[in-house]
Amino acid sequence: MITFTTNPQPADFADVRATNLAVVLRFVRENAPCSRADIAATTGLNKATVSSLVADLIERRLVRETGLTENRVGRPATMLVLDGSPYAAIGVEINVDHITAVAVGLAGEQLLSWRRAFSADQGVAAVGAVVRRVVNRMAKDERQVLGLTLAVPGLVDVQGLIRVAPNLGWHDCDLSGDLAKVLRAPGFPISVDNDANLAALAEQRFGPHGGASNLVYLTGEIGVGVGVILDGQLRRGGAGYSGELGHVQLDQDGPECRCGRRGCLEALAGIGALVGHDLSPGEIEAEVEEVVRRARAGDVARLERMGRDLGRGVSILTNVLNPEVVVLGGYYVPLAPWLLPAVEAEVRARTIAPDAGGSRIVASTLGLDAAALGGAARVLDSVDSGSLPHSS
Amino acid sequence: MITFTTNPQPADFADVRATNLAVVLRFVRENAPCSRADIAATTGLNKATVSSLVADLIERRLVRETGLTENRVGRPATMLVLDGSPYAAIGVEINVDHITAVAVGLAGEQLLSWRRAFSADQGVAAVGAVVRRVVNRMAKDERQVLGLTLAVPGLVDVQGLIRVAPNLGWHDCDLSGDLAKVLRAPGFPISVDNDANLAALAEQRFGPHGGASNLVYLTGEIGVGVGVILDGQLRRGGAGYSGELGHVQLDQDGPECRCGRRGCLEALAGIGALVGHDLSPGEIEAEVEEVVRRARAGDVARLERMGRDLGRGVSILTNVLNPEVVVLGGYYVPLAPWLLPAVEAEVRARTIAPDAGGSRIVASTLGLDAAALGGAARVLDSVDSGSLPHSS
Repeated sequence: MITFTTNPQPADFADVRATNLAVVLRFVRENAPCSRADIAATTGLNKATVSSLVADLIERRLVRETGLTENRVGRPATMLVLDGSPYAAIGVEINVDHITAVAVGLAGEQLLSWRRAFSADQGVAAVGAVVRRVVNRMAKDERQVLGLTLAVPGLVDVQGLIRVAPNLGWHDCDLSGDLAKVLRAPGFPISVDNDANLAALAEQRFGPHGGASNLVYLTGEIGVGVGVILDGQLRRGGAGYSGELGHVQLDQDGPECRCGRRGCLEALAGIGALVGHDLSPGEIEAEVEEVVRRARAGDVARLERMGRDLGRGVSILTNVLNPEVVVLGGYYVPLAPWLLPAVEAEVRARTIAPDAGGSRIVASTLGLDAAALGGAARVLDSVDSGSLPHSS
Repeated sequence: MITFTTNPQPADFADVRATNLAVVLRFVRENAPCSRADIAATTGLNKATVSSLVADLIERRLVRETGLTENRVGRPATMLVLDGSPYAAIGVEINVDHITAVAVGLAGEQLLSWRRAFSADQGVAAVGAVVRRVVNRMAKDERQVLGLTLAVPGLVDVQGLIRVAPNLGWHDCDLSGDLAKVLRAPGFPISVDNDANLAALAEQRFGPHGGASNLVYLTGEIGVGVGVILDGQLRRGGAGYSGELGHVQLDQDGPECRCGRRGCLEALAGIGALVGHDLSPGEIEAEVEEVVRRARAGDVARLERMGRDLGRGVSILTNVLNPEVVVLGGYYVPLAPWLLPAVEAEVRARTIAPDAGGSRIVASTLGLDAAALGGAARVLDSVDSGSLPHSS
């Protein structure tokens, strides 16, 4: 369906064949095993076109025929399934003291998940070293890398330039360009995105939220960022800076925030409000485990207060965006048993639409790899929307 | 371009020809006068297909040939422009004490703008009477009505059912269905939408905001509602209840709100905060004029305070949605000279992205007809996205 815009981008019209290839690939992903006739019947593309598109996808080793045939009226049909065995999509999340790298296959099967120590002042060379090891591993497995997306905690503009990543001490840097230089023309596209955006893409593709095409993801770290998916796509806003809920002020007289203001959501309901702000991620993890132990023993007052504050923040999202699902990620996940009831109560009380507008609030099941997985998901998304590989 | 979703709707695949007709129609709207060759070159559709699509559009009297030809290398080409002379799109806004009706042509030219007294307890029959008069006027002008959209101040779900419209005292009603009965199968589609959503569509199609495909509109009435356009399309959320900024709490100790809570945006920066809540729209208009007179005489303290509170609300939108343009509508328009500086200062101070994320804040130029115009715009949008009329 053509997306309506008052001034359509060339992309609306361009490259009809690539778009149709992507339509067929996506149909096979979601309906395999299926026949060429099934594809033609559902897509409205004529059978000759479908056959030519399928041949192309088979040649690219994105789709393959199975021996299977279906019992149906008329000739039995050769069934199609995803192939993709020679491909891999890579996602890398850069954190203050570690890098997480994942690789997944075309069908989303996880191929690799690594965590490596890192310090931001080592810069792009250290990132390149990790990426090179992942690429070599994929090469050993005879998989061609479809692309790499880097997840960064900070403001990333629509061109993929890092405007500012406070915790890494990086600003105005072209990480994808610099990394491409370090890797010496790696032969696959490299992109950079905000960690919350990518975690939302991971929930959309790999999470258990089924048909939800309106989903928001909250990072539960020292900072609180939001990834916004509406009508099935990530919404970045005009410049790429959407999802900055962490410094929305909830309480003018609240505690001081790292940003210098008072009573920001982050100051009230970020993990720092629970365990302090000056800890390394390793120390935070230990502290959170301790909080969980105490909560199991009945010490829940602070968590419930934090849940109420978090709920006030989430109610802004349910009122303004009316998502079907709100996913709490990061350190909110282990704390969810105690946070969720308070969050839900606040959201119900503060959402103007009846029944909180139908929004469900859930804890992420993807754990701390969510942003890295989202990096891989973004690579698969670009394949699904028409940038297809040529089988090497 | 096929919109990517993890589970594509049938619409993604269905009715390729209707979609292509709409692509060509939109291309002509934006590039007229243009030739069939221009269309083929830009859309990637082959020339035979374009010729057949154009013939169809001419037959429907949506496009017509002009005598014009272009000087270019090779044969001079017959140029195409929008026709649409036999069509009209109708928008009707329902307010507490009046109804606004507008009709526009296919190219957006305004054909009619009426305001009629109304009281909600007269119900659908009174709405029907106004619509019938508009339709008759269009018939006199030999224009076929493409469709009608009704703008309602309240929660309208994605099916177009009014869940609750407090000021009208309506809830859980199928206004479009009831109106179709009153009009006895009028022969054109009738839809219902939230007034802020439609005002945003009007700004997108008729406003001076050029290429902005990320735009939010704030209604400046007793209530404060938001219409959210991201990536060129209205975003309604999962159930249709997006844009409810009016009851987001800015100050726990703020003034009491109609909703029973304290310090909602509406209680601090809705028009009622300035002129009181128990006035009829007619009285509000007079009061606002008085406020403007006093402001011209230098009495601006209350307006500046209101602007700061409004700016806190707008900064939630700039942080979470990062729009290119924030349009202030309704009674904010006459007050804009005094509100805008305070709004802009707060938004700059409170938006985490540099330079307020590039968001511009402007007053609407469409006046109090915005929602009704948006109703007509929605009808034209549905034509642009493939539901084409058959010339009668």
